[in-house]
Amino acid sequence: MSKRLVVALSGGVGGAKLALGLSRVLSAHELLVVANTGDDFEHLGLSISPDLDTLTYVLAGLDNTVTGWGRRDETWSFMESIVALGGDGWFRLGDRDLALHVERTRRLRLGQTLSEVTADICTRLGIGVRVVPMSDDRVRTRVRGDAGWMDFQDYFVRQQCRPVVHELTFEGAALARPQADITAVLRSGQVRAVIVCPSNPIISIEPILAIPGMREAIKASGAPVVAVSPIIGGQAVKGPTAKMMRELGLEASAAGVAGRYGDLLDGYIIDHADADAISKIGARVMLAKTLMTSLHDRETLALVTLDVADMLALLR
Amino acid sequence: MSKRLVVALSGGVGGAKLALGLSRVLSAHELLVVANTGDDFEHLGLSISPDLDTLTYVLAGLDNTVTGWGRRDETWSFMESIVALGGDGWFRLGDRDLALHVERTRRLRLGQTLSEVTADICTRLGIGVRVVPMSDDRVRTRVRGDAGWMDFQDYFVRQQCRPVVHELTFEGAALARPQADITAVLRSGQVRAVIVCPSNPIISIEPILAIPGMREAIKASGAPVVAVSPIIGGQAVKGPTAKMMRELGLEASAAGVAGRYGDLLDGYIIDHADADAISKIGARVMLAKTLMTSLHDRETLALVTLDVADMLALLR
Repeated sequence: MSKRLVVALSGGVGGAKLALGLSRVLSAHELLVVANTGDDFEHLGLSISPDLDTLTYVLAGLDNTVTGWGRRDETWSFMESIVALGGDGWFRLGDRDLALHVERTRRLRLGQTLSEVTADICTRLGIGVRVVPMSDDRVRTRVRGDAGWMDFQDYFVRQQCRPVVHELTFEGAALARPQADITAVLRSGQVRAVIVCPSNPIISIEPILAIPGMREAIKASGAPVVAVSPIIGGQAVKGPTAKMMRELGLEASAAGVAGRYGDLLDGYIIDHADADAISKIGARVMLAKTLMTSLHDRETLALVTLDVADMLALLR
Repeated sequence: MSKRLVVALSGGVGGAKLALGLSRVLSAHELLVVANTGDDFEHLGLSISPDLDTLTYVLAGLDNTVTGWGRRDETWSFMESIVALGGDGWFRLGDRDLALHVERTRRLRLGQTLSEVTADICTRLGIGVRVVPMSDDRVRTRVRGDAGWMDFQDYFVRQQCRPVVHELTFEGAALARPQADITAVLRSGQVRAVIVCPSNPIISIEPILAIPGMREAIKASGAPVVAVSPIIGGQAVKGPTAKMMRELGLEASAAGVAGRYGDLLDGYIIDHADADAISKIGARVMLAKTLMTSLHDRETLALVTLDVADMLALLR
């Protein structure tokens, strides 16, 4: 097969599991992981990129597999101390994790792009595959609840997703440009597959797709687009995906997620538990074990996803 | 006695010991501690004020009495991690200490003054006495060695005081204004004593005195000015005081320090070990145990210093 490049669109925890699987079954130069940065925010004067950070830690083998976020072997002295000084404590920053935010903030202030900072940090942490932010321009997901608009992390972490969500917006998206490596790869004619990882469609994947030119570039790449459902048996594996979809009047199901992606999808992978949804889904569907508990699960689902893409390419 | 206010000029470690003693023998409202900020610098994007920090930790009982700098019960996860990310590791920032720098930097960026930030942090850490920076304007001590001018922390920490010092400058001092509380107290007519703590005269006390109007305001306060020698038997208790004084052509002795302060001093306290220097010193001299090992030593030296000031006031 001549086309070898794989582009994976990902949010945090769930998406990062498949991204890790892909990174282990592909050569490093074959994979480009595109991270949602709509969740990014400034906190305690630091620039924080939660999805990029989770991907970085997972791909570097530094992730905390118990919490699903942050670093393993973490300590919390900073957090204890800043709360004593009157600083905000609702977003938990571990001492090791903090180093990434301080170093990134320092470099961004020097004028480096988020892409440059991310590339250098990935290199230093020994990550072979390319990880890029969806854009070097500022995009901020905001959520409207009963009390009005909130920053995403305010809703997600401080208020622990309790408010009912009426509306979402990706502030800045209309003026943002896709990160340069993404368009270069999508235009290369060498794209084997575009994988939509099992992340929250509305807050992790849609900010990426909201960037003008992103959907068109994916379509124009000629590569099969294959998504993995983040919902298994009507439930999100982790996080507020199902709750948010219901509140926004969407069907919180594997079929509901596929409907949200619409004609972007060529193939769609759902769990065996959702087999009866096949007839409701427009794209070609493949059943698989989509709950990724072990490293083996991650690699297997990555291989299945690539197989589906390769079959779809042959069918064209 | 009607005049009750005491103003203490201090650098870091040595000065903070006497400041702590003074804080324990005076009521909280009677003491104003003025910190040198010529050593302040920006590092990893953070605003760091080493002498203010040492005073804060010492007065809050959070200081590391083993190292003499930083906090007790400190952890080092941040430092390990930032070095792995390519960040600078030569200035050691503990995880707890870091909270102070992050919170201060955040507030300074919001437009608060260093005085405001310092006052709030001191309150939160339960420090009753007032601690103020010498100025809210930027002053930076720089050092000229064989290889040219260096930032102070570069010389002091990164190069561990190895370069021979030919010259010092306090950049910005000529345009700086004394912090407002200092002039208010000095003008109050209620100043019992101005204490020059046993800090390095040329890099801790002279930056304070270099601010236009500071010497004049001290003189005009009418209060006796009493210094404690940081040099005992020709040696600095800690740090490069003696080495720097020699390199700058000054006599590295208790008498040399007094000469440096000149006619600012009304009284001068030296150690019994330096008794034979009395004849070389212009100010009235009192012998005392100036090495402060225990908390009792700090309180005793504070009481002696105040007694000397009170006697000098009666002699006027």
